[in-house]
Amino acid sequence: MSAQRGLACDIVVFGGTGDLAMRKLLPALYYLHKDRHLHAETRILSLARAKHDIDSYRRLVQRHVSQYVTQGDFDPTVWEQFAQRLDYLSLDVSQRVAFPRLAKALGESAGRVRVFYLATMPNLFAATAKHLASAGLANDNARIVLEKPLGESLETANQINDQIGTVFDESRVFRIDHYLGKEAVQNLMALRFGNALFEPLWRNAHIDHVQISVLEKVGVENRGDYYDNAGAIRDMVQNHLLQLLCLVAMEAPVHFEPEAVRNEKLKILEALRPITGMDVQDHTVRGQYSKGKRAGEVLPAYYFEKSVDHDSNTETFVALKAEIDNWRWAGVPFYLRTGKSLAQRKSEIVIQFKAVPHRLFPQGSDRPAGNRLVIRLQPDESISLSLMAKSPGRGMALQEVDLDLNFADAFKRRRWDAYERLLLDVIEGDATLFMRRDEIEAAWQWVDPIIQGWQDCYRSPKRYAAGSWGPDAADSLLERLGHAWLDERS
Amino acid sequence: MSAQRGLACDIVVFGGTGDLAMRKLLPALYYLHKDRHLHAETRILSLARAKHDIDSYRRLVQRHVSQYVTQGDFDPTVWEQFAQRLDYLSLDVSQRVAFPRLAKALGESAGRVRVFYLATMPNLFAATAKHLASAGLANDNARIVLEKPLGESLETANQINDQIGTVFDESRVFRIDHYLGKEAVQNLMALRFGNALFEPLWRNAHIDHVQISVLEKVGVENRGDYYDNAGAIRDMVQNHLLQLLCLVAMEAPVHFEPEAVRNEKLKILEALRPITGMDVQDHTVRGQYSKGKRAGEVLPAYYFEKSVDHDSNTETFVALKAEIDNWRWAGVPFYLRTGKSLAQRKSEIVIQFKAVPHRLFPQGSDRPAGNRLVIRLQPDESISLSLMAKSPGRGMALQEVDLDLNFADAFKRRRWDAYERLLLDVIEGDATLFMRRDEIEAAWQWVDPIIQGWQDCYRSPKRYAAGSWGPDAADSLLERLGHAWLDERS
Repeated sequence: MSAQRGLACDIVVFGGTGDLAMRKLLPALYYLHKDRHLHAETRILSLARAKHDIDSYRRLVQRHVSQYVTQGDFDPTVWEQFAQRLDYLSLDVSQRVAFPRLAKALGESAGRVRVFYLATMPNLFAATAKHLASAGLANDNARIVLEKPLGESLETANQINDQIGTVFDESRVFRIDHYLGKEAVQNLMALRFGNALFEPLWRNAHIDHVQISVLEKVGVENRGDYYDNAGAIRDMVQNHLLQLLCLVAMEAPVHFEPEAVRNEKLKILEALRPITGMDVQDHTVRGQYSKGKRAGEVLPAYYFEKSVDHDSNTETFVALKAEIDNWRWAGVPFYLRTGKSLAQRKSEIVIQFKAVPHRLFPQGSDRPAGNRLVIRLQPDESISLSLMAKSPGRGMALQEVDLDLNFADAFKRRRWDAYERLLLDVIEGDATLFMRRDEIEAAWQWVDPIIQGWQDCYRSPKRYAAGSWGPDAADSLLERLGHAWLDERS
Repeated sequence: MSAQRGLACDIVVFGGTGDLAMRKLLPALYYLHKDRHLHAETRILSLARAKHDIDSYRRLVQRHVSQYVTQGDFDPTVWEQFAQRLDYLSLDVSQRVAFPRLAKALGESAGRVRVFYLATMPNLFAATAKHLASAGLANDNARIVLEKPLGESLETANQINDQIGTVFDESRVFRIDHYLGKEAVQNLMALRFGNALFEPLWRNAHIDHVQISVLEKVGVENRGDYYDNAGAIRDMVQNHLLQLLCLVAMEAPVHFEPEAVRNEKLKILEALRPITGMDVQDHTVRGQYSKGKRAGEVLPAYYFEKSVDHDSNTETFVALKAEIDNWRWAGVPFYLRTGKSLAQRKSEIVIQFKAVPHRLFPQGSDRPAGNRLVIRLQPDESISLSLMAKSPGRGMALQEVDLDLNFADAFKRRRWDAYERLLLDVIEGDATLFMRRDEIEAAWQWVDPIIQGWQDCYRSPKRYAAGSWGPDAADSLLERLGHAWLDERS
């Protein structure tokens, strides 16, 4: 692989001792360094309130990086070089006075690209942007990276975006959704637009329905504070699930460039049929986990989790049926599902093609399934296409077989983590895989009435046992049209 | 697998000491016995001129079967049981007087199915049928199996079929083409008609061209006598290659039953655009191998092979461009190619889909190939679908990857040899995978003018070095339309 190290830049990580920085951002930067994708002059400056001198911070990072990179990839010599790029500044970024110190630490820009990565709570986003500007750091070479959640409604998202927008042009705002950095997701685009095979089939004439599932085994963990105010729809559906839906459903963009791709995604968000009023009860299911078991282990109910209100009505599970009102997708349900404390961890997109119109061959042992394309994002990344093939020997019984594209096997190369890919895109200023403001707005515009519908009906979320597959109603949602979630349930 | 042993029958193998019997038929029958597909009362009677007593014949068969079955599948206990079914009669089947002896050996029919398998020279077919009738053996339970070649022109094929037809109804004539018994070929039908994915793409709007290659490494071996009169077009194109073409191109049959399937194949043969007159030079290439080398070994020229005329103008190689004049295939070239003494042994069908209409992604390391479905029959049987996927890491470069359906892996079962499958079909009276008389006629009707065209122009076949990929003209045939044979040439 050729080493392109185009741009010298300063990468400033707000929340530099936090979970995201330690588990994802710094390991990703280590890999980018190791694979020679960083310019020799590129520096990383981490910011947080904790008191560290540079040596203790580097030791802290070393401990995490060596743990989070793939075994065998941590090389002490490489680490020592990487550590030389790494600096730390202890300051309280909620205070305006901190920013002149930051400016001083960064020194003269001299046209260097500066990436301000806000791995902090979103309530700091607007103020941080303002303070960056007042310290003279929001110049034309500055880029700001925002982690989700961006607001909790159209209104609050607009407030944040407005405030950011007074300081940073839209072209310099990188709203990250790490799902879009995953190889399997980009391969979904490669499959659709790099192969003449799929595009003619990619429409309501041939596709029966689509399932997008992001299931977690973990509960709310130590995020109760945030989560109990957000719930699954704000935490996952408004961003990750709708972004995946857009990539499945969008028309071919004119170019593979930021505006062209995001224009097409936006069109899908705008074509989503609103779910309002009584439809909310019919088209959505919300759930909350109660006490349960998984493999002998007792799992707590949501309302007993740390920092969660004992009377909480927050949903930890959502399933819904989305419909896209355009020529390509009319009549094709897109089922979305996400939740916590479930039986299995998996994220996948299932494209279920229609069954053959007519059974030519005698029935075999398998049911006559329609073809299925499954794009798996978690726990592993893969793409698999299920086909009916002839069962060997006499007769002409058919049997389902899977053609698998396993990235690790196919390419014999380490797979990039999503954050490596996306950080490099930020450094190079490529916003193709980042969310534009109008996408965020359109997503909230669709999600807000669902939340409103839930509030209007005063119903509690349906309980489901922790460690199960979610409430039964999530299955009924599909059964009405003769569909079923593609799960391997025992 | 359930053991269906429906019908007790007598399997009479004419040419019972010959190559086909030893290498294919008897090993196939051994497997059918071993896998419990033969009725307990089913007997096998081999006929040939050689003097054998039953013990010496069984020893002869044992030697061959143990050699030709997959290692580990030869089980002495199973063999002993199988050998009990096996009998031998030394007689000269060209003599009418032999047949009453055969009738006596078979004894009373009592409604038993009788399969007369003519693994002999085709010039014996007609007489054998007549003698069977005169000995009272051509009754309603009798079936006759004919090996190719069936005639050497429409006229001679008709003579044979007429004579057979006076004795056996068309429904009792099984013209075998062992290519149709191959799993990969049947899987071609399973893929097309058992999956909703392929049928919408299976037409001129999406398919660029089709290649059907049957390449042999061996020369004419000890078949010079026959081959020098036939040539590659009669030996391979008229039967195997056209049959494969039919299976690729046919419409979905109404049922998967003999008449329905063969009606559709016939429609393709009738839709083949005739190649006549001057078109013969443009659309076909004939070649003959001259002296050459493969891996250091010197290979003889065709005209020095045993029983071949030193001035022979017989082709050992044919390439041609066929066109099908119907709605589905207009404008899609079907390139056929077969030959002896070539660089590689392989039989495959390549479905080359059109390239994407527009290059969305930046160029990667691979050329932007259209998708390809490759059905391999030899040396191994497999199906593979080439796709463009994203090359891992940064950017959006595409790279070709193959999704492979390897039958051995997918099913974890021994793959049947074509003859097992087809022999069982004959026993059960299922003619779906056998050629009907009108198919043979239509195939000759298309082939005869090509042979005529070659004769009219007095040109010798183009020479190609033994061990090469055939004459250059076979490559030029495709290059005119920007195509190329899918070979891995060094």
